[in-house]
Amino acid sequence: MKTRVINLKNRPVGLPDTKDFEEVQENVPELLEGQILLQSIYISVDPYLRGRMSGTKEPIFKLNAPVSSKLIARIIQSRHKNFKTGDIVSHYLDWKEYQVSDGTGLKKIDQDGAPLSANLGVLGITGLSAYLPLTTFGKPQPGETIVISAAAGAVGSIAGQIGKILGCKVVGIVGSDQKVTLLKEKFGFDAAINYQTEKDLGAAIAAHCPSGVDIYFDNVGGGISDAVFANINTYGRVVVCGSISNYNDTEIALSPSILPIVVYKFLSIHGFLIADFAAQFDQALIQLSTWLQQGKLKYTETILEGFDKLPKAFIGLFNGLNEGKMIVKV
Amino acid sequence: MKTRVINLKNRPVGLPDTKDFEEVQENVPELLEGQILLQSIYISVDPYLRGRMSGTKEPIFKLNAPVSSKLIARIIQSRHKNFKTGDIVSHYLDWKEYQVSDGTGLKKIDQDGAPLSANLGVLGITGLSAYLPLTTFGKPQPGETIVISAAAGAVGSIAGQIGKILGCKVVGIVGSDQKVTLLKEKFGFDAAINYQTEKDLGAAIAAHCPSGVDIYFDNVGGGISDAVFANINTYGRVVVCGSISNYNDTEIALSPSILPIVVYKFLSIHGFLIADFAAQFDQALIQLSTWLQQGKLKYTETILEGFDKLPKAFIGLFNGLNEGKMIVKV
Repeated sequence: MKTRVINLKNRPVGLPDTKDFEEVQENVPELLEGQILLQSIYISVDPYLRGRMSGTKEPIFKLNAPVSSKLIARIIQSRHKNFKTGDIVSHYLDWKEYQVSDGTGLKKIDQDGAPLSANLGVLGITGLSAYLPLTTFGKPQPGETIVISAAAGAVGSIAGQIGKILGCKVVGIVGSDQKVTLLKEKFGFDAAINYQTEKDLGAAIAAHCPSGVDIYFDNVGGGISDAVFANINTYGRVVVCGSISNYNDTEIALSPSILPIVVYKFLSIHGFLIADFAAQFDQALIQLSTWLQQGKLKYTETILEGFDKLPKAFIGLFNGLNEGKMIVKV
Repeated sequence: MKTRVINLKNRPVGLPDTKDFEEVQENVPELLEGQILLQSIYISVDPYLRGRMSGTKEPIFKLNAPVSSKLIARIIQSRHKNFKTGDIVSHYLDWKEYQVSDGTGLKKIDQDGAPLSANLGVLGITGLSAYLPLTTFGKPQPGETIVISAAAGAVGSIAGQIGKILGCKVVGIVGSDQKVTLLKEKFGFDAAINYQTEKDLGAAIAAHCPSGVDIYFDNVGGGISDAVFANINTYGRVVVCGSISNYNDTEIALSPSILPIVVYKFLSIHGFLIADFAAQFDQALIQLSTWLQQGKLKYTETILEGFDKLPKAFIGLFNGLNEGKMIVKV
């Protein structure tokens, strides 16, 4: 039996290109005792993979070896006592149509619950990356103002809705008028700003946040973040979930230094590795599922069909191809 | 009875100037019941006052009103039941030779302990600003590497010694070879770097920190901080105590954005208002006093004599006039 595999061919320089990936075929070995055979169903495609490709973020992908990300797979053959054919599982796995596993780390998914793909989004790492850092580091208090960059993205749209559930004023920054409408009408944001059409983004943020910015949930970095920092309040909390505006930089981007603002405004700024919250995942997923069932959390997905679409889907993250969570259906 | 007073005359632009201050005379009112008359002995002069003068840091000083800072005073007359003539107290008070107080916030100082001036330094806000944020946010673990900027300064030299007490490797960054010697011979730092004579500060930090930088205790910001961030480890903690390189900026300083590093390295960055640690002051001062008595903490002071030297002492903070804690003896 053969499987298609997508390897990292080159470390991308600047915007990733299809030439940085290579589709190859390999044999799927026969199962040994204690192993299972997985067939990929949905594969998550996320901006953080960019850093692992270029070698700036641990764990670093090897060249001429498969890219890996969170995926959902069906067990099509099992010689493992804890798994049976037909089980659906999720874990960080290789970009392969078929692969053998010894079961380590696999999490069984309830097939009677939310749609399977939601387990890569609102009920997966995406939802956890919004909920746990926002509440742990952002500590939102009712009446406070949260600003979210890339607010129509997978994590941003969930972070904003959680901010609303917790009683905050939530203002999103996005790159199109269509996304402004989406934030206000679908996700219930109090306001949304299109940075592409604002001449003075700092002034626009000030106008929409008359009490200043208490919490900044940042997915983009760069000039958008500079404009938010100019409006941040004393004791402001900044959760840095991503920095997508910088991921493809080939030169070092310059910004006004934020260190004097940290001193003057007594700020805290936190990056995070979501895996470090693993002990809280189960409880957080119960909360996210409850909000989802209650209709308090909505989500959008962009699903491209076909295993070979993985490179295109990944590259599309950097030019607005997706609305919400980007997923490839194998 | 008259007293000399030093008012803020202008909000400084760039480096503060003697013309930004004005010495005036005013009458000292007669004491009412419940009041005491204070005579200033030692006045603390600190970089953070710069932000309060220019209006960027709360609480902002008013124009044509006295500057205030931590000072040590003798009670020379008392109509207050809790204070008697001869008591020595410290608190944030106005830059006046004599002033009336109702006792609010005054802390009595043990006259049989360390030298009085130490209560403005190692046993005052200076020592607390080193100890509490370093331990709370920096969380030093034995064997970790701490880098400290402005390491020969009042706070930096104490932070470094505490790092050593806690079992860390401590590397200081300073602006002269004389300070390099001071750090290594008096304060027991493992290494010290003169940024004025290093062509490539980032490479020098890398050479002295072969395991990378786990904790950065920053007093300066600017290019020195850029070079430290380039060497920071995954899960690095940054305590931003000051940003003296930026305090006199008239244009916005540009730096490589640190937000991508925050994302990739899962950093935390904290500013702080030391008053927010007030509940821990008493216990922290016991610890600092113990270390001082044990000879584990050393400190340096630069004491200028004469009330009229306050502006000169303050301005001197920005051109290297002081070694360690800057104090004016009235």
